[in-house]
Amino acid sequence: MFTVEVRDHIMIAHSFRGEVFGPAQRLHGATFVVDAGFMADTLDDNGIVIDIGRAHEALKAILTPLSYRNLDEVPEFKGKNTTTEFLCKHVYDGLAKAARDGELGRPGRELKGLRITLSESHVARAQYEAPLW
Amino acid sequence: MFTVEVRDHIMIAHSFRGEVFGPAQRLHGATFVVDAGFMADTLDDNGIVIDIGRAHEALKAILTPLSYRNLDEVPEFKGKNTTTEFLCKHVYDGLAKAARDGELGRPGRELKGLRITLSESHVARAQYEAPLW
Amino acid sequence: MFTVEVRDHIMIAHSFRGEVFGPAQRLHGATFVVDAGFMADTLDDNGIVIDIGRAHEALKAILTPLSYRNLDEVPEFKGKNTTTEFLCKHVYDGLAKAARDGELGRPGRELKGLRITLSESHVARAQYEAPLW
Amino acid sequence: MFTVEVRDHIMIAHSFRGEVFGPAQRLHGATFVVDAGFMADTLDDNGIVIDIGRAHEALKAILTPLSYRNLDEVPEFKGKNTTTEFLCKHVYDGLAKAARDGELGRPGRELKGLRITLSESHVARAQYEAPLW
Amino acid sequence: MFTVEVRDHIMIAHSFRGEVFGPAQRLHGATFVVDAGFMADTLDDNGIVIDIGRAHEALKAILTPLSYRNLDEVPEFKGKNTTTEFLCKHVYDGLAKAARDGELGRPGRELKGLRITLSESHVARAQYEAPLW
Amino acid sequence: MFTVEVRDHIMIAHSFRGEVFGPAQRLHGATFVVDAGFMADTLDDNGIVIDIGRAHEALKAILTPLSYRNLDEVPEFKGKNTTTEFLCKHVYDGLAKAARDGELGRPGRELKGLRITLSESHVARAQYEAPLW
Repeated sequence: MFTVEVRDHIMIAHSFRGEVFGPAQRLHGATFVVDAGFMADTLDDNGIVIDIGRAHEALKAILTPLSYRNLDEVPEFKGKNTTTEFLCKHVYDGLAKAARDGELGRPGRELKGLRITLSESHVARAQYEAPLW
Repeated sequence: MFTVEVRDHIMIAHSFRGEVFGPAQRLHGATFVVDAGFMADTLDDNGIVIDIGRAHEALKAILTPLSYRNLDEVPEFKGKNTTTEFLCKHVYDGLAKAARDGELGRPGRELKGLRITLSESHVARAQYEAPLW
Repeated sequence: MFTVEVRDHIMIAHSFRGEVFGPAQRLHGATFVVDAGFMADTLDDNGIVIDIGRAHEALKAILTPLSYRNLDEVPEFKGKNTTTEFLCKHVYDGLAKAARDGELGRPGRELKGLRITLSESHVARAQYEAPLW
Repeated sequence: MFTVEVRDHIMIAHSFRGEVFGPAQRLHGATFVVDAGFMADTLDDNGIVIDIGRAHEALKAILTPLSYRNLDEVPEFKGKNTTTEFLCKHVYDGLAKAARDGELGRPGRELKGLRITLSESHVARAQYEAPLW
Repeated sequence: MFTVEVRDHIMIAHSFRGEVFGPAQRLHGATFVVDAGFMADTLDDNGIVIDIGRAHEALKAILTPLSYRNLDEVPEFKGKNTTTEFLCKHVYDGLAKAARDGELGRPGRELKGLRITLSESHVARAQYEAPLW
Repeated sequence: MFTVEVRDHIMIAHSFRGEVFGPAQRLHGATFVVDAGFMADTLDDNGIVIDIGRAHEALKAILTPLSYRNLDEVPEFKGKNTTTEFLCKHVYDGLAKAARDGELGRPGRELKGLRITLSESHVARAQYEAPLW
């Protein structure tokens, strides 16, 4: 399996509900460094999984609506804890839709999976990886 | 698959038996930066794989008995080469027991696997990954 | 000059006032990975600048009141933009007081300076460095 | 599954054919930081996947013919875009041959797979991972 | 002294003249990860050294003419070895001109110095640091 | 000031005498990732501070006698705590001698200073920086 992975980041505020979170129940924030990996069994005629520039743009398109936001006020996330792992899945869903809609420059079902990693600090990160089909 | 991964480290002395190890047969040492990844198919009601604070504590509990030790003198490791990959498995076994005993705050069989990575320098690391059940 | 540098982090929310900040005028947040460097011309009788464990504790003592906070609501910061460089100076001031008060295990004026670095993402960081005396 | 991973690098020139590459159609270059991961289900009698020193040498042997080269002039790559993902496969093929020929110090089919990662910058990398048999 | 530092990168081809360079006399290439640090004694009324967004743009403006180029063919560099340290100075000169011309949003002589770091691999980098006035 | 910095590492065992060290009084060990920075006011006719290959060799020559050793048994270090900062100075002294003896390919007093950094983990490092003359 081939993977091409690109990196971007967002800086957000949020709070969590649930005693398990301790002080993170307070309004706080995070920089999430986001790695998006696009997977394919084969390279296309250009010798690529997908174009790295296009991969950067696709990731940016998912991240921009969250960038410099208080996620507690984003309607789509109402009633949810926007944990690192939850946000991995959110980025996955956005990129998976783009991939399935053929918007990433690779036709049909040639993109096989996505692996999304959000690093919240130098000592903690989360990941969501799943096939696309 | 979701993964939550936390980082800690130990600083140990040890030596290896076997000609393949060359100068590493002498008593020397290492800093191992340890990443422990906890895997689950689904997030719990809080929106997490497991609590990151609890993950840090569980990893610390495995590492503390090794920390600032000469591993050649740890009875449990008698007759073993405490290589980077061997220690990955040791950390895995400790965390796997905690997971199976339900000590990580996730009931039943909801935690599916573990991925342990020990980086011994900027140019070498080892990993052990396996399902829990 | 010798320097000993230790790392910790905080996760905070804040907003900025001033058009220069663009979207960062909205409530957002950051993970700041904080490096605190302690400088001395000479090593003490133990062969150290200061004990690394004590350095970690001193840094933690400065960071804990900010950890998992909305900095817009911290009275001490009222009317200030809590930018990355501003927070470097805040950490510097706290550690400088501890150093000058002899709380870091090194007597008199043997600690000469501090260098504080806050990384806000993989592409941006700030630093404040100054002599202590 | 156990993995042992070692790191090296090459600095090369090349150009790409295909409009998708935009300015990268011009002759340019890259530093590729190369991680080669060797996978096995079990450790050998020494407690290792393969010797880390030997892993470094095996990787170096694949990289040296490319090092400080213009890849556009390497006969083996004629008519190919030497993209990051293409080069992952090239490194894989070289190490896979060494593994299958028993040159890595592990007999028979004990090495199960390889994972090759090339980082081209702090924001983009590619990976090729596949079983050996 | 306060420093704000931002990161970008370029991917270039070049060759060196001089026996000291060994195989690097051949046409090869590099990814340079570029950190540009802007230094000031005081923060402005917004609490910043300079705006991080503007710092990124200023760095990008210097790097774009070099990006995806064969530096052997850039007229400005004719007869020069475009070594990592030489390029540090080139980036310095471009940003120093912008700073002295007041294009970085900080009036007069409030910006005091620049520190430019180019990392060419995980094991080598160069730096140029100098006052602006 | 120009700096060229190269990276290598050692893996050693040692113990410390002194209550301040707590559990590090026991025999333990460390991987030290070593950065050696060579400083000059000007570039030579080749456009370099010193050759990066030669810098790597010079650093390796200092590190090899320590590599895979128990530093408690190195005669030169008898009665000393081989702390991270102490070892920074040891590497400095070795490279300073080479520089002053003209062994680094730069004549006379053109090399102005050295900056040695030893990272002992992802959360702690030490540095020694001083002029050569």
